[in-house]
Amino acid sequence: MFQIALMGHGVVGSGVAEVFYKNRKSIEKRAGQEMEIKYILDLRDFPGLAYSDKFIKDFETIVNDDEVKVVAEVMGGLHPAFEFVKRCLEAGKSVVTSNKELVAAKGAELLAIAKAKNVNFLFEASVGGGIPIIRPLHQCLAANEIDEIAGILNGTTNFILTKMIREGMAFSDALKLAQELGYAEKDPTADVEGIDACRKICILASIAFGKHIYPEHVYTEGISKITLEDVSYAEAWGGVIKLIGRAKRDENGKVTIMVSPAFVSGESQLASVSDVFNGILVRGDATGDVVFYGKGAGKLPTASAVVADVIDCVKNWGIFKAPFWVAEEDDAVLDYKDTEIAFYLRVRCDEADKALNKAKELFGEVTPLRVPSLTGEVGFVTGIIGEEQAQKAAKAMESAGYPVLGKVRVLDY
Amino acid sequence: MFQIALMGHGVVGSGVAEVFYKNRKSIEKRAGQEMEIKYILDLRDFPGLAYSDKFIKDFETIVNDDEVKVVAEVMGGLHPAFEFVKRCLEAGKSVVTSNKELVAAKGAELLAIAKAKNVNFLFEASVGGGIPIIRPLHQCLAANEIDEIAGILNGTTNFILTKMIREGMAFSDALKLAQELGYAEKDPTADVEGIDACRKICILASIAFGKHIYPEHVYTEGISKITLEDVSYAEAWGGVIKLIGRAKRDENGKVTIMVSPAFVSGESQLASVSDVFNGILVRGDATGDVVFYGKGAGKLPTASAVVADVIDCVKNWGIFKAPFWVAEEDDAVLDYKDTEIAFYLRVRCDEADKALNKAKELFGEVTPLRVPSLTGEVGFVTGIIGEEQAQKAAKAMESAGYPVLGKVRVLDY
Repeated sequence: MFQIALMGHGVVGSGVAEVFYKNRKSIEKRAGQEMEIKYILDLRDFPGLAYSDKFIKDFETIVNDDEVKVVAEVMGGLHPAFEFVKRCLEAGKSVVTSNKELVAAKGAELLAIAKAKNVNFLFEASVGGGIPIIRPLHQCLAANEIDEIAGILNGTTNFILTKMIREGMAFSDALKLAQELGYAEKDPTADVEGIDACRKICILASIAFGKHIYPEHVYTEGISKITLEDVSYAEAWGGVIKLIGRAKRDENGKVTIMVSPAFVSGESQLASVSDVFNGILVRGDATGDVVFYGKGAGKLPTASAVVADVIDCVKNWGIFKAPFWVAEEDDAVLDYKDTEIAFYLRVRCDEADKALNKAKELFGEVTPLRVPSLTGEVGFVTGIIGEEQAQKAAKAMESAGYPVLGKVRVLDY
Repeated sequence: MFQIALMGHGVVGSGVAEVFYKNRKSIEKRAGQEMEIKYILDLRDFPGLAYSDKFIKDFETIVNDDEVKVVAEVMGGLHPAFEFVKRCLEAGKSVVTSNKELVAAKGAELLAIAKAKNVNFLFEASVGGGIPIIRPLHQCLAANEIDEIAGILNGTTNFILTKMIREGMAFSDALKLAQELGYAEKDPTADVEGIDACRKICILASIAFGKHIYPEHVYTEGISKITLEDVSYAEAWGGVIKLIGRAKRDENGKVTIMVSPAFVSGESQLASVSDVFNGILVRGDATGDVVFYGKGAGKLPTASAVVADVIDCVKNWGIFKAPFWVAEEDDAVLDYKDTEIAFYLRVRCDEADKALNKAKELFGEVTPLRVPSLTGEVGFVTGIIGEEQAQKAAKAMESAGYPVLGKVRVLDY
């Protein structure tokens, strides 16, 4: 009998209990062991549940109980989750978590402890909810060198952008609707400003490239400045605007990584990822592009990923099989200002031709974009240029009398 | 040092050698062991390669060499692949294969031997080429009950259908082009008639439902009767025609499984899977719909899946971790005639209204479909009805003077 402890009984935690008790038979069959939830740690009371007797309020009960072999941390937040997880690993327990903030900030440190203790630290649920992505990245693509990862990693912003694209809803209205539907928090900053997506692309990049990529080194731009006009220009270009987290490794092992809104071609598999869904593209040297798609959040999808990790911990007791990466002293991330990409810009002007001529002068070759309903302005897409050059050129456009109304990066997948 | 043998040096086999030698360092790092290819079994000679000294012509050399721990079977075909794989497993060697015919026909038998010998039998490359699907199905979705699987599993037919849909190319021309491009064999029967897709959906269903599903029990219909008119009606309906392999389990554990062309809604993630790409939708009770997308065939994608399996065999030496299912005496598959689904039909008629009235009488409620350029005929979509009822009603339409020109199933995802 494998005893398990749950830390946290919020949305994900209660989902874990639900999935466990509902599919227990097949879960135990797959794990090859009988299993039971021994404790659920939560400061609140939950009377009237079939498992109300399992609730405890003191973490020490879990860490000091040698019968507890696997702990599922689904509390969220960095503290005290970090301290609790660290102590559980040090006590020789395997830990699984859905906590992307924890993994993105402390992954290398916790993985090192797990490896030294020969236990596991798994976090499939931390990225993409119920979409299997961590394990395929780590295992199935083991024979590939992974060149690049790009994904729609945040369901809330994708829902907002979908409403803007399909229904012409303004950003603020779409955000309000997302809040009403429970997709966005009261304080939506972490979603809307790309912070959540940043944590997730950091985790994926750390697995793919073997070094801890810290969120604070990643240039991150949210969607709060995206307008319906930008959406129209994207359509005129033949695509849609998505919030994309992406990471790429160059020949010298340096990582280009960024979170920002971006024009994505209508032909791309990422373009058709709508509403609260997530889609993650992995480009391997042998497989080519592989895309994983599904619900990136939600109680049951996330809970099922947590339970799958618990099964893996039970099944592989005594064998370290987590993904692994190291903390590096020197920064593995290339300064985003030294990277290159194409841009879409939208500028106010009286005469489009003159504005486009100025744009050519400052940005090099540009492709004009016109939206018939928008007058007194023009849009264009640049070639691949340096981030710093683009910033300087945009400022120069302004100085030349062409105020920049919108500026979004343009991807080639 | 782990010694490996390759059986077969065709497209996939030469790809395996290429991927192995190219990424050897990171492969060995991931496996945690040094590795070498000791033998390559092929009846042909391959002079001038960096590894030409490794070729042998006698299988006995491999099976009798105790140093060889892992064998990759990439010969294809049922015989002698089956006998070779069986003897390797019985000799205590782990085997990986890309051979869907072998797994679909003999999976349960080979898995039983592998389990008894505590070695592995892995076949990630047998479905979806480089797309990780076998392992996610088996492991990552372990906490789910899988209700349904549906996929575009054959790249050749998807290429042909894409040409028909996008370029209005007739079936025969598209097939010819596929042959010229090397996507289709000289004898395209296995692809075009759905046989290849059938093997793949059988493998996925066997993993998901735990019982061997044999191809000969699966109703299989190819795309050779699909016309450009059908493509137009699908467009009028709001979707596209795809060759779909699908499997579903009912409450009694009986499996509904079929390969056939089908109308797929334009909103579906499967609708945007074009050209030689594959897409596989897995519907779990907790995750909801998860879709895996990528190149379903090709030398390097398939080879990388084989190499990933080899790594897994090396890493987990002594631990059985293959998917597992049992051979069942009684047939797990529901007779397709006893299953229900919606249909699109296209009938010749002088007066569309009269034909539709007859259709209502025979099929129950129907939704008319009209393609302005097609005169002297009408299309319609039925509700969910029994397969047998649909067959009888179609015959009755003919008897009533409305020849059936096309009939394709309609899916709701």
